[in-house]
Amino acid sequence: MTILPDDVRAFLDAPEFAVLATTEPDGRAQLSVMWVGRDGDDLMMATKRGRRKVRNLQRDPNASILVYSRAKPTRYVEIRGTAKITDEDARALVDRLARSYTGREHTLGDPDEERDRVVIRITPDRVRYQL
Amino acid sequence: MTILPDDVRAFLDAPEFAVLATTEPDGRAQLSVMWVGRDGDDLMMATKRGRRKVRNLQRDPNASILVYSRAKPTRYVEIRGTAKITDEDARALVDRLARSYTGREHTLGDPDEERDRVVIRITPDRVRYQL
Repeated sequence: MTILPDDVRAFLDAPEFAVLATTEPDGRAQLSVMWVGRDGDDLMMATKRGRRKVRNLQRDPNASILVYSRAKPTRYVEIRGTAKITDEDARALVDRLARSYTGREHTLGDPDEERDRVVIRITPDRVRYQL
Repeated sequence: MTILPDDVRAFLDAPEFAVLATTEPDGRAQLSVMWVGRDGDDLMMATKRGRRKVRNLQRDPNASILVYSRAKPTRYVEIRGTAKITDEDARALVDRLARSYTGREHTLGDPDEERDRVVIRITPDRVRYQL
């Protein structure tokens, strides 16, 4: 099932920064600024094992994402979906996102830290937008 | 009690756009891009009665807000707190925020719509930031 309209896909590929909401144990939203990529309709983010947002998603896979245009903040996309923490190639994703967001290669960090990278794959079930 | 450090106050006054998270009946986060002002440590937003975010906050007053720098998105402030929908002067708040965000006066909308404005006043209890 395809859920993201073409203009939403194009907007997500711009790229703009995403705000990821996960649910804390007390039910409140935890919010983080993230790079975001797409794999078809899935949203892809890279982070590290043990981070608060990862633990939240492991307990409650519901995720909401908001992306707004920094040039024109009335343009936005809000997506809700279900997140999986996967062992896909996080380094490859970071490299791709670094080139997209910074125009440069990703600078390799501490090798131990690099091994802690994980991928958050979010499958959308709802999209609301104004573009 | 003062909870917002001076550099957080200055950052919030920049102004940058805020992403407001409210909780939907199904427990998921609803995210909106908002103008935000301060009244001391309280965060102030203007919206309209009956909006989804207002109904969510009336049912569950927990609110999370993330503000990031559009020029340098690694700079951010995340605030959590308790929201009240108040009948304070929403028009005055909109005028103040419009001048702050757009440099211009607020353009008066339909008078019936103007009467529907309400203020969201959020009292923080937790702040996390990197500036």
